[in-house]
Amino acid sequence: MGTTQVEAAPEPKYWHLKTVLSEALDSEFSVGEILPNERDLAARFGVARATLRQALEQLELEGRLQRRRGVGTTVAPPRVGVAVASSADQEWPGEADGDAWQTVDSEPAVPPTAVAQVLGTAPGERVHRVRRTRVSQGRPVAAELLYVPASSVPELSAIDAPSGPARARAVLRELRRLGLEGQDRAVELGSARADDAKELDRLPGAPMLVVTTRFYSEGETAAMSVATYRADTCRLTFGDSGGVEIHHGPDRRAS
Amino acid sequence: MGTTQVEAAPEPKYWHLKTVLSEALDSEFSVGEILPNERDLAARFGVARATLRQALEQLELEGRLQRRRGVGTTVAPPRVGVAVASSADQEWPGEADGDAWQTVDSEPAVPPTAVAQVLGTAPGERVHRVRRTRVSQGRPVAAELLYVPASSVPELSAIDAPSGPARARAVLRELRRLGLEGQDRAVELGSARADDAKELDRLPGAPMLVVTTRFYSEGETAAMSVATYRADTCRLTFGDSGGVEIHHGPDRRAS
Repeated sequence: MGTTQVEAAPEPKYWHLKTVLSEALDSEFSVGEILPNERDLAARFGVARATLRQALEQLELEGRLQRRRGVGTTVAPPRVGVAVASSADQEWPGEADGDAWQTVDSEPAVPPTAVAQVLGTAPGERVHRVRRTRVSQGRPVAAELLYVPASSVPELSAIDAPSGPARARAVLRELRRLGLEGQDRAVELGSARADDAKELDRLPGAPMLVVTTRFYSEGETAAMSVATYRADTCRLTFGDSGGVEIHHGPDRRAS
Repeated sequence: MGTTQVEAAPEPKYWHLKTVLSEALDSEFSVGEILPNERDLAARFGVARATLRQALEQLELEGRLQRRRGVGTTVAPPRVGVAVASSADQEWPGEADGDAWQTVDSEPAVPPTAVAQVLGTAPGERVHRVRRTRVSQGRPVAAELLYVPASSVPELSAIDAPSGPARARAVLRELRRLGLEGQDRAVELGSARADDAKELDRLPGAPMLVVTTRFYSEGETAAMSVATYRADTCRLTFGDSGGVEIHHGPDRRAS
């Protein structure tokens, strides 16, 4: 906590423990190492199990620890910077992503009400729902649902199969025919739906960073993307140089 | 969950309860209303208290519910879109924020190690640490620490008081003399330090969206900002039109 520790407001017990634990992680453990069990840890630091558990949860929230099914609690690697947008980035999905996103599937689906309102589709009207996943350093880090109204891809052939990866690529290809006027993004905290959780190797309800992107063309919203990023392992970057190189949780740098 | 419910992977019990509760919130409760106690709710939905609690935690994570000290659990208003950057935004802190940020204080402080590395300052070297808070709709939504090395503001008068709001404004004013070449941002999940928590009316450890911004001038990092936004009430927006108008948690729109 740098020089501010003495000036700071009084902190709860688990918070102090968290700081101590965090230092122990730095000095005694290496990335991937499994932590001793809760009983041993609580005994070592002279705290109640409940206090220990709060501190561990906090460290998990900050990306320092990972709880993995069948493995236990391990020391997490530093978060991965995942570029969401550069300043110059005004591109359709799939246009210049390189290999970051994998196009998985497309199927006709009724979008959630809030998405339908933004897209201006009628209640119950189906749109193309393209599913993509994003891989970083060999691991899935995000799952995306991209909603494309039929009116945005009028030339899309009805002869092709209505779903599948080839269909998904066709939807993206047709979308790129439109002129892209602009895009908006929003980032908020959410939690993993069961299907996303499975894909991203998390438990349902795990904290996620949800990035909602609206793509404009000819004064209207031509498509809308809802992408769910693992909050434990990802740092979303925006800007010129592809990310701010800061490691570990915010409490280690924010005072 | 729209039309995907049948295709989706099996969901845990509390997840289903969460969906049911979410619908009840829409139809039976209004914003700010206090929820019945846990025992009554568990009885009404025929679930164990532990299951209920998991579902409530989930809804809190998604911004649908708020737990307020001395009040209980209330129905949260929709998240507020807080503009973090527009496409054209290349500005120094305080340059064109309008009334969004309030400059609170500045004092000499040793930055955290990771920040010092980015700023290129020596270990133990003090920098100007400017503290600002951001208010939206009358409520504090973010707390920021801006680190400015002495070398970025060489003309800053040493005659002025070394700390206080006037000093903070002087640091920002001197910083604006530099040409701004670019800025990078990163967003990640973090948790509230005790001092931020108090300022933002949250408990220490509450989930926060941490926005780290690096400001470049003459090929170097001239300043670095670490801003902590309330994750329960804020949706951070980036882009052209000041935000994507989507209400409520991601699960209501993301399938």
